Amino acid sequence: MHKSATRIGSDMAEPLKIGVAGLGTVGISTLRLLERRANAMSASCGRSVMVTAVSARSRGRDRGISLERYRWVDDPVALARDPGIDVFVELMGGDAGAAHESVVAALDAGKPVVTANKALLARHGVDLARRAEKAGVALNFEAAVAGGVPIIKALRESLVGNNIERVYGILNGTCNYILTRMEAEGLSFEACLAEAQRLGYAEADPTFDIGGFDTAHKLAILTSLAFGTEVDAEAIHVEGIAQITTADLKAADDLGYRIKLLGVATRSETGVEQRVHPTMVPKSAPIAQVNGVTNAVAIDADAVAELTLVGPGAGGDATASAVVGDIADIARGLRVWPFGRPVDELTRLSAAPMQAHKGGYYVRLSVADRPGAAAGIATRMAEREISLESIVQRHRGARVHGGDDPATVAGAVPVVLITYATTEAAIRSALAAMVADGYIVETPQLIRIERE
Amino acid sequence: MHKSATRIGSDMAEPLKIGVAGLGTVGISTLRLLERRANAMSASCGRSVMVTAVSARSRGRDRGISLERYRWVDDPVALARDPGIDVFVELMGGDAGAAHESVVAALDAGKPVVTANKALLARHGVDLARRAEKAGVALNFEAAVAGGVPIIKALRESLVGNNIERVYGILNGTCNYILTRMEAEGLSFEACLAEAQRLGYAEADPTFDIGGFDTAHKLAILTSLAFGTEVDAEAIHVEGIAQITTADLKAADDLGYRIKLLGVATRSETGVEQRVHPTMVPKSAPIAQVNGVTNAVAIDADAVAELTLVGPGAGGDATASAVVGDIADIARGLRVWPFGRPVDELTRLSAAPMQAHKGGYYVRLSVADRPGAAAGIATRMAEREISLESIVQRHRGARVHGGDDPATVAGAVPVVLITYATTEAAIRSALAAMVADGYIVETPQLIRIERE
Repeated sequence: MHKSATRIGSDMAEPLKIGVAGLGTVGISTLRLLERRANAMSASCGRSVMVTAVSARSRGRDRGISLERYRWVDDPVALARDPGIDVFVELMGGDAGAAHESVVAALDAGKPVVTANKALLARHGVDLARRAEKAGVALNFEAAVAGGVPIIKALRESLVGNNIERVYGILNGTCNYILTRMEAEGLSFEACLAEAQRLGYAEADPTFDIGGFDTAHKLAILTSLAFGTEVDAEAIHVEGIAQITTADLKAADDLGYRIKLLGVATRSETGVEQRVHPTMVPKSAPIAQVNGVTNAVAIDADAVAELTLVGPGAGGDATASAVVGDIADIARGLRVWPFGRPVDELTRLSAAPMQAHKGGYYVRLSVADRPGAAAGIATRMAEREISLESIVQRHRGARVHGGDDPATVAGAVPVVLITYATTEAAIRSALAAMVADGYIVETPQLIRIERE
Repeated sequence: MHKSATRIGSDMAEPLKIGVAGLGTVGISTLRLLERRANAMSASCGRSVMVTAVSARSRGRDRGISLERYRWVDDPVALARDPGIDVFVELMGGDAGAAHESVVAALDAGKPVVTANKALLARHGVDLARRAEKAGVALNFEAAVAGGVPIIKALRESLVGNNIERVYGILNGTCNYILTRMEAEGLSFEACLAEAQRLGYAEADPTFDIGGFDTAHKLAILTSLAFGTEVDAEAIHVEGIAQITTADLKAADDLGYRIKLLGVATRSETGVEQRVHPTMVPKSAPIAQVNGVTNAVAIDADAVAELTLVGPGAGGDATASAVVGDIADIARGLRVWPFGRPVDELTRLSAAPMQAHKGGYYVRLSVADRPGAAAGIATRMAEREISLESIVQRHRGARVHGGDDPATVAGAVPVVLITYATTEAAIRSALAAMVADGYIVETPQLIRIERE
């Protein structure tokens, strides 16, 4: 033990000087929290922490607080290298340009970095971790996943005694808000998206959120920490929520499930499976109770069994809470490997092919109203050894659950099936065969079931 | 920044030598996890960690693993001072005797300590923290509260940017198991306690758990971390669950609540309120969904809003997961103040008197079947400005909810009231007045409601 090194406050009397680049909601909240909690920070960390310089695109913009006490630096890359700061905090966002360049510049200049930038880490995580390692400095990103929820610290520090089997979560508040509203109010996806946009929960161009890409960036980071693999967002199977209908939500409800957009990473025989898609979760699962813009991450591990963390996934103050926690860790002298172990000990992620995914499936079909259709469907399932846990078939012409969206076309019979565990390849092939047989009128709806 | 101090793995090649005292379920799980995760530990911490010596009461006992590779030390106090160990891990339990003496000995000998001992910390936390501080070593106790749930680290490190307003949780698996079973099966407290004992979830003498004392020890630790106050378990108002009936659980269910034994610490105008008692929580609250032996801790804070952590509160491997995480932090060179700030900066806890508690109440009465009783009760409430949110009165002689325990005596009318926020003093005085008036046949049941 190096007591002089771990002694708090003994020879760390110098304040830790912070430079913040990016003064949007999170940046301003960070300045506010650091100001408001200055005494608590120095009591906790054994040294005081102060923001000395800031950078943002527009100097003149009214941000609701005075920036007079901070030195202004136009160029974030210059701020990153500025000898007047000890720690560089990147809150600009984006996986390229100024955010990327300035983080690289700070690390290469031997300065610890705190960032909330999941896109940057998903794309450049390994390279940035290597630069941090080479410089012997921290690269902290608690705010990049699930906002104020301390999931990075849990995976990176607390759970080292565990072999992690699965990590999954509701990582995008916009999607969870939309699905929660659709379920509660019976409103269409489009109506709930419009409402989310009105309330500021969704962007004008919502593709990044509702297409599952934001969730994928966060999942890529969690996967690396959970399994000791290199960050690999490219290997993620991504589906969004735009095709979910109220008929699906109602069928799910009847069958004891809720539909959530999950990011899931598991170890399987064929490698690490990383997937983002709408998922049926049993109502009894803790994650099924998570409503609105709230995020949640669940971890299955051999020692701790199941651990679930629930909290705000976005918002200025909640995200800033995580940023400030990361800064405090640097002030305390803590440094852990960015992805939990040295970059050279991260293994290349061996991506399990989605076709090899095993699990239960929810299938909603519009079945042609002609003789032999039911038998034909059953045969196509049986040929692939797919067993059915439930079959819900309503009378001819009815809608499966009377939702406001047409679940069937005229003359077709709506059928909902729940399968026991099978493979993605088997269920896809069974559905293709049914379509080829002419039994299926519309594109089948397929939603994976996630076991608790 | 002291880069040489924060550099991982550079000059920390020596293995960290651990001494473990106490080889019950948690002790054995800790040895197993440290063995199984040796590579992961050294990858994460930059140095290897090995158990070199152990101590327990009986050397001969079969513990299911070979202890041959560890040096045996009969006296835990001698182990604590042993120059052959760098870190002392105390897993004996108890707030006095060998556990206390050995932890003091280790700290005074300048060795970091990891312990799962909530009773010890609840009673001697301030003194032990002072010794750790004086010696400049860590005192880590993640396993002492909510087993494998990393709540200590969240409060002590992650949330430093927050002013915490309330911390509350389900901290005792035995009680939650019993209440969950009573609710689900409609069985009596006694029957569920007996079942819990049969399954090993409750001790032969269950007083410590069901009386709320175990929850109180854990709450005392959380309070100190949340509010920066000295640990003060004596100041906690403690009630157990033995008086909860199925009639209460059913009435709660009808009214949209569940009953949980909570430990709650809040700031109020009159000081810090610390209380352990059966509590009505809205079914929609995340904590209401926590069933069986699972634990949960929720934090209300100004920046992060609400954060909930859910996981196993007991069990060898889950608790050992937290112990191993604590050891890893020491191996990484991290040291934070045991209660989040230097002992001299902890404030004395100014205990808010329970009579000043403000909140809603559930009241179950057996009202005498005589003229004027209902009016008399209403008057006693009105005199104290207590407003009623709900009144449920069933027909004469009926039981309030048909539970298997007699909710009323013959000729009495069962009445359930839910009040809006009032004070403990007001509701207690109203009930005393009703009893004095002769309107109330049995001792009234009073359960506090916790807002979400």
